[in-house]
Amino acid sequence: MTYCVGLTLDDGLVYISDTRTNAGVDDISVFGKMHTIVKPGERTMTMLSSGNLATTQMVVNILENRIKAESDFESRLADASTMFEAADIVGSTLRKVIGSFADKGSDGEKKFHGTMILGGQIAGDEPRLFLIYPEGNFIEASKDTPYFQIGETKYGKPILIRAYSRSMCFEDAVTLLLVSFDSTIKSNLSVGLPLDVQVYSRDSFRQGLQFRIDKGNDYYEMISSGWGDALRRAFDRLPKFSFDASVAAESEHFESRSA
Amino acid sequence: MTYCVGLTLDDGLVYISDTRTNAGVDDISVFGKMHTIVKPGERTMTMLSSGNLATTQMVVNILENRIKAESDFESRLADASTMFEAADIVGSTLRKVIGSFADKGSDGEKKFHGTMILGGQIAGDEPRLFLIYPEGNFIEASKDTPYFQIGETKYGKPILIRAYSRSMCFEDAVTLLLVSFDSTIKSNLSVGLPLDVQVYSRDSFRQGLQFRIDKGNDYYEMISSGWGDALRRAFDRLPKFSFDASVAAESEHFESRSA
Repeated sequence: MTYCVGLTLDDGLVYISDTRTNAGVDDISVFGKMHTIVKPGERTMTMLSSGNLATTQMVVNILENRIKAESDFESRLADASTMFEAADIVGSTLRKVIGSFADKGSDGEKKFHGTMILGGQIAGDEPRLFLIYPEGNFIEASKDTPYFQIGETKYGKPILIRAYSRSMCFEDAVTLLLVSFDSTIKSNLSVGLPLDVQVYSRDSFRQGLQFRIDKGNDYYEMISSGWGDALRRAFDRLPKFSFDASVAAESEHFESRSA
Repeated sequence: MTYCVGLTLDDGLVYISDTRTNAGVDDISVFGKMHTIVKPGERTMTMLSSGNLATTQMVVNILENRIKAESDFESRLADASTMFEAADIVGSTLRKVIGSFADKGSDGEKKFHGTMILGGQIAGDEPRLFLIYPEGNFIEASKDTPYFQIGETKYGKPILIRAYSRSMCFEDAVTLLLVSFDSTIKSNLSVGLPLDVQVYSRDSFRQGLQFRIDKGNDYYEMISSGWGDALRRAFDRLPKFSFDASVAAESEHFESRSA
């Protein structure tokens, strides 16, 4: 499994991905799932990937032009005039790679699926963020849906729903994402440290500030234990439920049903 | 979808289930997923069900003896000498019902799956709680795994992991479960109000206090909005992340990679 999030903010874009890859619980490895292509002063694009690692690595390698392909993909990405066009290039590459496994085994196509997040900015346009499906089509983030998650998305979603705000600063966004990742890592063994974090500042048109958070990172440890305590304190402060008269009255009805 | 939880406490057992059933998003209905069989003074058993509604309703009807079956299932449940034996009866019934659809369509067996939680107490034994799989086998809750969730389990799990304690009172347990359900309902349309709640007091051997929480229930509304506020406050109080020297140093390394 995998957990990656791309977030749009007024100030720019934030990306975070775990690095765990597993083929069964007895075969766990660390692989980066975050790839960035930069043309300083003009454009920067970052891809996050989930799903079959062979598929997404091939997609990234084709796009970064490390594989002889029919056309010059990297220059196609580097020349895309809009992020929308770039998303289309990534999507069709993803679709083509997955399709190439379609006849390999009974359900090869499904097994070798991948889903990607593409974010970035090209001079003359706003920072934009896309979610790209295995079928090669894609959707763009908006004010209503300002972030995308891929992989094991559920455990970490409730806190994003509640605490995200488009106007938050980068520091708060990183804190929020670490809380979301901590909830996921505590619940699903197949999502694991280290985490790759990247922060892209709007209109900077260069590689965003990127760093890795590994086991033993003081801040992550503090969030991990601190958030548990904060949740328990928040829970303790909630108004307590009481079995009041109305509940007791309703329960009479049930008691008469006994066999 | 569905979300149900069975919880063991020092004081007894707590069950909660949503009531939403859907065949597509355009066909949503309300069905109870909580069924109780009581022999006052001697035993009480409660079943929660998720999965295909036709399957689980048939299982419950067979077990409650409303369908002519080969053997007298209700009396078998009513005569089971241990909860373990009762779980075995529920499991084999579930397996038999699912198996009867095995040849109905290409993947009938998988499509008509169901999973159940069975809890209860028989005089002379402790209150016990089981998770019963579509294959008919089952596992029992223990001090290490003191609760079971079925259906859409992920959104509501982080708060259970953090705030559950075996020694909590019934009122706190209901509050905790409502928080867990609220997170799930906010994230997945196919889990919905009203909720059925039942509280079984250890050694009472009668139908537990059962009530329904519907839209507009003052306490649920208060939890629903109050928990969102509490989460945001807890988040705001976390120590803030800062892009300190070490991060900045590492980022140099990344900046030099630009293409």
